[in-house]
Amino acid sequence: MQTSPCTEVGRSGETVSPGPVCRDAGNFYPRTRHRRGNGRPEPDLRSRRWNPRCESMQTIAAIVTNLFEDSEYIDPAEALKKAGHTVVTVGIREEEVVWGKTDNSPVKIDRAVGSVNVDEFDALLIPGGYSPDKLRVFDEAVEFVRAFVMSGRPVFVICHGPQLLITAGVLEGRRVTGYASIVQDIKNAGAEYVDEEVVVDGNLVSSRGPADLPAFIRTMLEKLA
Amino acid sequence: MQTSPCTEVGRSGETVSPGPVCRDAGNFYPRTRHRRGNGRPEPDLRSRRWNPRCESMQTIAAIVTNLFEDSEYIDPAEALKKAGHTVVTVGIREEEVVWGKTDNSPVKIDRAVGSVNVDEFDALLIPGGYSPDKLRVFDEAVEFVRAFVMSGRPVFVICHGPQLLITAGVLEGRRVTGYASIVQDIKNAGAEYVDEEVVVDGNLVSSRGPADLPAFIRTMLEKLA
Repeated sequence: MQTSPCTEVGRSGETVSPGPVCRDAGNFYPRTRHRRGNGRPEPDLRSRRWNPRCESMQTIAAIVTNLFEDSEYIDPAEALKKAGHTVVTVGIREEEVVWGKTDNSPVKIDRAVGSVNVDEFDALLIPGGYSPDKLRVFDEAVEFVRAFVMSGRPVFVICHGPQLLITAGVLEGRRVTGYASIVQDIKNAGAEYVDEEVVVDGNLVSSRGPADLPAFIRTMLEKLA
Repeated sequence: MQTSPCTEVGRSGETVSPGPVCRDAGNFYPRTRHRRGNGRPEPDLRSRRWNPRCESMQTIAAIVTNLFEDSEYIDPAEALKKAGHTVVTVGIREEEVVWGKTDNSPVKIDRAVGSVNVDEFDALLIPGGYSPDKLRVFDEAVEFVRAFVMSGRPVFVICHGPQLLITAGVLEGRRVTGYASIVQDIKNAGAEYVDEEVVVDGNLVSSRGPADLPAFIRTMLEKLA
């Protein structure tokens, strides 16, 4: 579900903010006045009511847990935020801090996968590393990923990320790439493995690993434009 | 290839050792007199000439690299050595020290997988963790594993170990178990996944993870008896 373009309109008597508000799918959302210590506005991650620049911003779920490949979450997430989108980390437990496998980067989980619905998000990012191996034993994570792919919304998957798609049983007949170690698993799942830096097949955008991040991020942003 | 039972016979004029020697397949091998600092005899890992107790000892290759599941190498290896067998660690580079993922246990690699031949060993052990994921991108490791399974010699595989068998393309029609995260990969490889602590199918002995180690080790030792 993509948000509608926003229109800035004044609304007198606004109690939360005296400034302009955004119109999204017929609803008016006031700009938040909450700010963190760094001065940046704080989004309400439990709603879609976050659009500080009133652009065609989208909300991307990043499903991640321990031993994720640091750059495969951090670089796409930074690019998405820089483009005005919102990234919501989805994991096993809300508020949990998970750690990257290469640089030991900490990432706080915003939402537990058991509490989210695909309709809350516009796209899904699946970073690699060993995070997908850990996530694919959780039925709720697998169901979330399956529902996302079936919804037709964009799914951005890199490195070991396709492992989650394999367990979800959604790769039959799809064109996809992934990390070298899981090539046979991808083929055995009924997919066509393509050894390219980025492969687009409908709503599936896939890359092989950290070296492909520039192409992966570029294609991801184009898909969301 | 299993060693023949040894017979202790005296051989006068023996230059290496004055003691009894072992007869194996018609050859006489003197007992080694080399001893390490701990007083234990040192096997020559490049030959099968190591049988200090002249029992039906066998030589087991353990294929392993970084991020192996510590207990899945250490416990079987200790049990094998205690039973009089020899364990030879086979990895990417000879002399390299690799590390476990849970307890950070160091293991020194005895032989590079590119330099070994299946005929040098009686059985193969494939510990799990993320070691199999790392090994399966090396053609020589995959070829070694494939040749081992095809040779009919026992292959002991646990946890993520079947990932190597999947890349080797040797699971079609086999009954096997493995770690929960790779169940779909095992099924997609054409195998029958069996959710039991230990599964024996011909020369393949498999278990699901560390909790199954007692049954895995017991069955392994029975297979080598």
